[in-house]
Amino acid sequence: MKKKIAIQGVHGCFHEQAARLYYGEEIEVVECLSFEDLFVSLEQKTADGAVMAIENTVSGGLLPNYSLLHKYGKQIKGEVFLRIKQNLMALPGQKIEDIREVHSHYMAIAQTRSFFQEYPHIRLIESEDTAKSAADIATKRQMHVGAIASGLAAELFGLEILQESIETHKQNFTRFLILDDKLNVEKRDIDKSSICFTIPHVKGRLSQILSIFSFYDLNLTKIQSLPIPGKEWQYFFYVDLKFEEYNRYREAMNAVQPLMEDVKIMGEYKSYNE
Amino acid sequence: MKKKIAIQGVHGCFHEQAARLYYGEEIEVVECLSFEDLFVSLEQKTADGAVMAIENTVSGGLLPNYSLLHKYGKQIKGEVFLRIKQNLMALPGQKIEDIREVHSHYMAIAQTRSFFQEYPHIRLIESEDTAKSAADIATKRQMHVGAIASGLAAELFGLEILQESIETHKQNFTRFLILDDKLNVEKRDIDKSSICFTIPHVKGRLSQILSIFSFYDLNLTKIQSLPIPGKEWQYFFYVDLKFEEYNRYREAMNAVQPLMEDVKIMGEYKSYNE
Repeated sequence: MKKKIAIQGVHGCFHEQAARLYYGEEIEVVECLSFEDLFVSLEQKTADGAVMAIENTVSGGLLPNYSLLHKYGKQIKGEVFLRIKQNLMALPGQKIEDIREVHSHYMAIAQTRSFFQEYPHIRLIESEDTAKSAADIATKRQMHVGAIASGLAAELFGLEILQESIETHKQNFTRFLILDDKLNVEKRDIDKSSICFTIPHVKGRLSQILSIFSFYDLNLTKIQSLPIPGKEWQYFFYVDLKFEEYNRYREAMNAVQPLMEDVKIMGEYKSYNE
Repeated sequence: MKKKIAIQGVHGCFHEQAARLYYGEEIEVVECLSFEDLFVSLEQKTADGAVMAIENTVSGGLLPNYSLLHKYGKQIKGEVFLRIKQNLMALPGQKIEDIREVHSHYMAIAQTRSFFQEYPHIRLIESEDTAKSAADIATKRQMHVGAIASGLAAELFGLEILQESIETHKQNFTRFLILDDKLNVEKRDIDKSSICFTIPHVKGRLSQILSIFSFYDLNLTKIQSLPIPGKEWQYFFYVDLKFEEYNRYREAMNAVQPLMEDVKIMGEYKSYNE
């Protein structure tokens, strides 16, 4: 029986590409039209695992997705990085001058907005999903409508690519998290951890914490602060740590905990290596 | 003559609220339909200053806006924080059951998506601007269409608020940057700086840098890392620093520069105090 993996989006979307990159081709994809639905399908056991975008090198973090992790009490079990190549596609025979509106996910629109500055006659309309916009054009035989989606979507739905790689920044990578309770990561394979914590306004507190991480040979691969409004001088942090020895990482966590408040370990997993 | 301030969006948008909060009511607003147009109106001198959203406590940073700062060589001259209260509005007399589609800026849609989960019959459509969506409903007398926008927009365009404060997270603040070459910030008033830099993969390098900041009494009010794809182990950082003494901040910068690469000071300015 194929493993069922929930993705945000429909067949042909970047989430499906990421899922296949992580799990291989032998999966059955469960389409979800929102990030929250990923968690719902895990809870209702209609999926064995899920793949969820968490940050992009150009547009930054999808912070609300961290809130979903907390809400549903799910642990990160892995990660995968995918280069995002956006393409403008339409029904075969259509030219870019024929296109009046382009549908896609808001992130894809944000990533390609400068391409469309040359085409002020094209209206950009947010849809639930890049690949769904492509599928809609194909099934409804929509003239004068384009979609921004993956090359896989063009192939699957028989659309023609009018312009390839229209993303503004070519170094455009998205990091996806793997949520899968059935995935048992062996302790000896764990080399990465995602944590979040609050620190009170104590002079030099963050540098103390980072010194301890460094002393225990932990590499910080991500740090992002968020101000906590209403609580002056309090900051909330998302941090990713890479390490070689799991036990040393645990020792480091014990050493830093007294310096932090509200520490949460969001997942301990094997980092992605191409 | 009133000072001309460029805003991203049209009359009634959050950018206008932020501009009035910073400059007071005696301004003439220059509407821009993209963030890039803010810079164009500064270059073409159709505006004296500009207000640009840079980060939100819920959805995170608008990283592409930093790239615009670099591209146009503009310095940050100030900042302002605004609480974002999103409202669903429509023509007077319309009920929520009558609404088939809701138009708004993608960020406003992202911030209110969970409210709309209860109304699956409503289609969410991205527009250029929150207030423009509200204005369109009013001028075109659009039935069955709603907009997500500020209370100011409802007031200006004579729309009825169907539901107030529909943002998922009530602690929703946006930070706006002030870009204004004509604003001469006195050195003695400067208490904040925004910098970006790269650090090579040297063990503990970031904690060394933060220790120096702490030694010189600089408070880190923001830190965000971005991986540089293709350059393994290189990271790019956006950091905001608050301080009391400008000279001590300069000393700290001299002390840390040898530890960083490609340092850029994006602005030295007076921090926002309510």
